[in-house]
Amino acid sequence: MSDHAVLAQAVRAGQRLALARLLSLIENEQPQGEAALGELYPLTGRAYMVGVTGAPGTGKSSLVNELAKTLRAKTYPGLHGSRPPAVAIVAVDPTSPFSGGAILGDRIRMRDLAGDAGVFVRSMASRGSLGGLAHTTSSVADALDAAGFEVILIETVGAGQAEVDIARHAHTTLVIQSPGMGDDIQALKAGILEIADLLVVNKADLPGAENAVRVLRAALDLAGNAGGPAASGGTEARWQVPILQTVATTGQGVEQLVEALLRHREYLQASGLWRERGQQRVAAALDARLRDRLAERWHAAQPDGCYPEMLARVVRRELSPAAAVQEMLGDGPAPDSAARLRAAQAGVRR
Amino acid sequence: MSDHAVLAQAVRAGQRLALARLLSLIENEQPQGEAALGELYPLTGRAYMVGVTGAPGTGKSSLVNELAKTLRAKTYPGLHGSRPPAVAIVAVDPTSPFSGGAILGDRIRMRDLAGDAGVFVRSMASRGSLGGLAHTTSSVADALDAAGFEVILIETVGAGQAEVDIARHAHTTLVIQSPGMGDDIQALKAGILEIADLLVVNKADLPGAENAVRVLRAALDLAGNAGGPAASGGTEARWQVPILQTVATTGQGVEQLVEALLRHREYLQASGLWRERGQQRVAAALDARLRDRLAERWHAAQPDGCYPEMLARVVRRELSPAAAVQEMLGDGPAPDSAARLRAAQAGVRR
Repeated sequence: MSDHAVLAQAVRAGQRLALARLLSLIENEQPQGEAALGELYPLTGRAYMVGVTGAPGTGKSSLVNELAKTLRAKTYPGLHGSRPPAVAIVAVDPTSPFSGGAILGDRIRMRDLAGDAGVFVRSMASRGSLGGLAHTTSSVADALDAAGFEVILIETVGAGQAEVDIARHAHTTLVIQSPGMGDDIQALKAGILEIADLLVVNKADLPGAENAVRVLRAALDLAGNAGGPAASGGTEARWQVPILQTVATTGQGVEQLVEALLRHREYLQASGLWRERGQQRVAAALDARLRDRLAERWHAAQPDGCYPEMLARVVRRELSPAAAVQEMLGDGPAPDSAARLRAAQAGVRR
Repeated sequence: MSDHAVLAQAVRAGQRLALARLLSLIENEQPQGEAALGELYPLTGRAYMVGVTGAPGTGKSSLVNELAKTLRAKTYPGLHGSRPPAVAIVAVDPTSPFSGGAILGDRIRMRDLAGDAGVFVRSMASRGSLGGLAHTTSSVADALDAAGFEVILIETVGAGQAEVDIARHAHTTLVIQSPGMGDDIQALKAGILEIADLLVVNKADLPGAENAVRVLRAALDLAGNAGGPAASGGTEARWQVPILQTVATTGQGVEQLVEALLRHREYLQASGLWRERGQQRVAAALDARLRDRLAERWHAAQPDGCYPEMLARVVRRELSPAAAVQEMLGDGPAPDSAARLRAAQAGVRR
């Protein structure tokens, strides 16, 4: 049996060291990781994936830890049922090009969750490639899914495109705010609310929590009136985004949050969105991989120095990126923008 | 003369309505916009591009407005010199799928900057495509560059991958924090600091400002010791990231911030980084466009129903995305992961 098949079997058998090795192979984009994941792929598609996002300072990591502890405290119908669900946490930091911050976060998590074999924590940092992190995160989540984790909490640090993309691939997206950030005009921008299935005001024991809830409620109403994606959902009952209040440091409100998550899961399954979001997730993964491979293949087929020479011409402003691509892909010669501009400047009409 | 050549000439002549129309064409990815930008491309490469990023609630937009006003208040050697520099603001919100928030922000800006023909403000919202916004922002900045703006302030809302990508294409990146956010463990993550050329603690009149500066200083020292990208800069004097304090609402510290920006600009030019960052920006734009076109061409060449059928097989978990791409690109048949797994489960050794 080949190495990757042995690895896949060990992951399937629940060996944590094998799982950690597989995740490293995937993170480092090693072919062996992809091969092992290919073996495990038929086992995927079962986990409940929850995206958790929010600005720094909202206590997001603490809340994710509390969520994991609460999920592990009892059995839930639909999440295994006969024992507490196995929970994986994937903490993604798209802004960190190295893992220093991630390691710090892990150590604090360890203290809380150590000794529970039903919890697995993995931190991921960006390697700097555009879109690469969303891609790798998707594969890491697939591996954890295949390894038998019933709930996968995917935590991202900010509110940028990468977080939105990562969250978009989850079944449920939870957006965390904290008091004092909701009064700002920026927070009133409805964009981040558009992706939220659940809103949480954490640090609800701080002054301003009620005001934060009020501002979020107003923003939600505004977004609802503007007609977000949820409005196009057809005949099924529309999901009303709940606003919950938690205090992660004491655990207050976390049980209610878990209940709200499970209600959303039921809603997704009843409405057909569970299936739809799962398919969107797969479609995005396929598209990203196809684009990567097409670019690799194209570059490999080019004569040496051809692309660098074209890049140099663009750097010299002899032609625009669009014109350069047109020329390289053989869709006819690029318009010589410099000559055209000189002609236009000289007042020559064509 | 063709329509796009007329448009390009009008933009070059300083007609604001033509510029606004060109930016709309670019934002909507209309071929005419690209064609006009192609004509204008030889005029690009002159503007000083400044990326401004930071979490919501830091007063980023107000600070950008103050920066514009301060830049417009006098002449600066190197930025035109004989009159105040023309300043363009590009406000990017990757989390907003519609422009509601952007319009609100614009209205407030208008009040401050209205009547100054040397300032141009443009808000951009995401249309939901992965990486699409960074791509369009780059073209919008090129158009403003060609239109003669000497300083282009590119403001992004958060700290995610998209913001990092957008900021990475600027000459100088300014990261804004505010008191009370710096004590959190998340803020200690050094990632966001890695991209900062200048750090600003805005709302410096609030309690905790000194503490925020201390925390940032400690984080910078940590990042410096870990050896960031700046450490590999060779023999030129290394840039020491300054931490500035501002109060955007009163203008306090903004003049010092402009001076720090101009010092960084001089540093970039003296060290050769100005040229290098400009080239990286062009290379990223070329790469993004090439990938888009390769994917479009590949899809156009496929028989109808071929890609959807492959997607359906991945959705059914018959093969992984990686295996599907391998099969579609003709690199040999995909390994049948389901059969392999069943064989592995049955204990069959190969």
